[in-house]
Amino acid sequence: MEFTKGLLSNVRAKTPLVHFLTNYVTVNDCANITLACGGSPIMADEMSEVEQISSLSAALVINIGTANERTLPAMLKAGRHANNCGIPIVLDPVGAGASDFRSDAVNQLLREVNFTAIKGNISEVKFLSNGITSTQGVDAAMGDLICEDILDEVFVFSRQLSVMTGSIIVITGPIDIVADSQRGYAIRNGHPMMARVSGTGCMSAAVAGCFLGANPNYALESMVASTAAMGLCGELAYQRKTRLDAGISTYRNLMIDSIDGLTEKILEDQMKVQQLF
Amino acid sequence: MEFTKGLLSNVRAKTPLVHFLTNYVTVNDCANITLACGGSPIMADEMSEVEQISSLSAALVINIGTANERTLPAMLKAGRHANNCGIPIVLDPVGAGASDFRSDAVNQLLREVNFTAIKGNISEVKFLSNGITSTQGVDAAMGDLICEDILDEVFVFSRQLSVMTGSIIVITGPIDIVADSQRGYAIRNGHPMMARVSGTGCMSAAVAGCFLGANPNYALESMVASTAAMGLCGELAYQRKTRLDAGISTYRNLMIDSIDGLTEKILEDQMKVQQLF
Amino acid sequence: MEFTKGLLSNVRAKTPLVHFLTNYVTVNDCANITLACGGSPIMADEMSEVEQISSLSAALVINIGTANERTLPAMLKAGRHANNCGIPIVLDPVGAGASDFRSDAVNQLLREVNFTAIKGNISEVKFLSNGITSTQGVDAAMGDLICEDILDEVFVFSRQLSVMTGSIIVITGPIDIVADSQRGYAIRNGHPMMARVSGTGCMSAAVAGCFLGANPNYALESMVASTAAMGLCGELAYQRKTRLDAGISTYRNLMIDSIDGLTEKILEDQMKVQQLF
Repeated sequence: MEFTKGLLSNVRAKTPLVHFLTNYVTVNDCANITLACGGSPIMADEMSEVEQISSLSAALVINIGTANERTLPAMLKAGRHANNCGIPIVLDPVGAGASDFRSDAVNQLLREVNFTAIKGNISEVKFLSNGITSTQGVDAAMGDLICEDILDEVFVFSRQLSVMTGSIIVITGPIDIVADSQRGYAIRNGHPMMARVSGTGCMSAAVAGCFLGANPNYALESMVASTAAMGLCGELAYQRKTRLDAGISTYRNLMIDSIDGLTEKILEDQMKVQQLF
Repeated sequence: MEFTKGLLSNVRAKTPLVHFLTNYVTVNDCANITLACGGSPIMADEMSEVEQISSLSAALVINIGTANERTLPAMLKAGRHANNCGIPIVLDPVGAGASDFRSDAVNQLLREVNFTAIKGNISEVKFLSNGITSTQGVDAAMGDLICEDILDEVFVFSRQLSVMTGSIIVITGPIDIVADSQRGYAIRNGHPMMARVSGTGCMSAAVAGCFLGANPNYALESMVASTAAMGLCGELAYQRKTRLDAGISTYRNLMIDSIDGLTEKILEDQMKVQQLF
Repeated sequence: MEFTKGLLSNVRAKTPLVHFLTNYVTVNDCANITLACGGSPIMADEMSEVEQISSLSAALVINIGTANERTLPAMLKAGRHANNCGIPIVLDPVGAGASDFRSDAVNQLLREVNFTAIKGNISEVKFLSNGITSTQGVDAAMGDLICEDILDEVFVFSRQLSVMTGSIIVITGPIDIVADSQRGYAIRNGHPMMARVSGTGCMSAAVAGCFLGANPNYALESMVASTAAMGLCGELAYQRKTRLDAGISTYRNLMIDSIDGLTEKILEDQMKVQQLF
């Protein structure tokens, strides 16, 4: 995919500082995959410092996985400030729809902040659009995974949501979808085992932050490339896991290692991206 | 042990959602071992959402390892609500007795919430019963480990505590004990290396949450089986660690891998459970 | 280096309890490396318990990586209490200078607490001394890494800062520096890959906490030995990583394993410590 050329090299060349307001469950994975990808992570959620930290940063990642009444206002503040500074922002609406608090949090974030990209599983993203959700915990609800059968439907939905929000919409699942109001892509990288490791989605948002931070003028391309990169690393990690006869815990580490070892050439050769509109 | 048959299969078949209010030290391990065991984890400690999240869940795990004035009220609220909904709850009273705050927290939790099971090391559990403790940090105090010599004494104590609290009592150590007011079991699975990894106890509570969530009508059996399963995974992980010539960090991962690979047959064949009363 | 003999053995013999108020990004690594080193970790940042927990502890580690308005007062309280009890304290001023909040936090900590040791990268430590900083996130600013060329300058600076603060100053980088007002050492252990893993610095502070906790009357020696030990483990981990053909994620684990396997003899034989004044 010609247009994604050079995006990863830019990450390695620029070492973008990525500011995270993220959950405490997978925060260490986010830090380490950011380093492995070529970025530099900073976690800061104190209300009185988030603006200054965002000002230093090349991208901001907001993940509501364990948001609370202290951190939500800090997320809003950081987001508004990043908007003012023109810094790209990724929203990971973890568990959106699972509680009124999370739903209100997401709605407030969408009202007050313009996100460059919103990345979630199908049930989280569906919630954003219609307030009707079948969220079970933080995993995609059964029967709601994106497969070939519902691809067209999901694309129409993604495009509409992109028009509504002004954000690039990324829906992760067996097939990943990346769409704005103009263009849409299906990405067929990834491995089912990724769903069995906590934090795969959070790490994908971290990688997106690295790509956006280094390539702010190529936001859609960055989301396509970073989503494909994460999926590809899931595949490469699985191959290596099989060779090592290793288990599920090692698989998490191997995903991070795969991002570390990823090159433009490997990414370009092995990303499976199809433009759909 | 005939009566534990099918409990693990139920976990895999039902994918119980387990709600955690837990410490930020080992929360990632809790999430990953829950997935490896066959459950689905959700971490949520915001006061205004814990009731809704608990309502969605099959089990609740409360761990006071890094509780604070914000999260303790959320633990109480989640616990009371889970009681109203009939959802099983595990309490892990990490460091009980180490400070007045932790002691008061545990006492308040015991007054306001009926726990299905309370799982701790001997000094934590002793604190619950008599307020006299020799807690050093979060590890069992020296000289207080359960060994064959003090087994009878510990059983009398566990049964009494179960009568007092209405909860199943699980005391972890070289020998694990699981008791309610009617029955008591000694479990001789496990490996000394488990004590050298942060979070083994927290992970055991996570596995207990999975078993209880999938088998709510077999609470005592679930606590016996999950405690034996965790100990057995400590053994299997040690064997694999030795074969790989790997270190202590890998051992943590291998425990999670072992839960992932555990089957009913392996568990049944290798669990060392002795009924004592 | 004769004078560091026995310090590690004391850690293993005494199992010092180390109290952490630390960031939620790398807290699990801090817990596990403390156990691997021979200490016992306790994480506690609730205002109402930090004094009691510090009283139980042999050392206190304060890391401001994700400090906030709730935890900063707890850090101050714990620090003042540890001072009153004569318990050694390590300050890790993560990201000092990156925001007014962090800067004010560090300044307030330095005013109200006497730290046994302050450990940071060159930009963090420079901030402490002159309020002028080039901090980018939590990594040492480019061009500011300690190399042979600027060694003399850094030593003068460290000694001055030690006089100003009364603390041992540890500056980490390609060459580590440990100095008080009387003596200064350059340590040439370590590996560049350590900078590519989140938490290396935090883990170094944890190891320092173990050494200080077990050897409170040998504070400078403890900081030299623990800094060299951490660097050496970075080297040993790299050797093992190469043999295993493993990746960056495994490297983190191998550092913890290396501390676990470290002996007095290995440390003494392979530490590269040069006294400079």
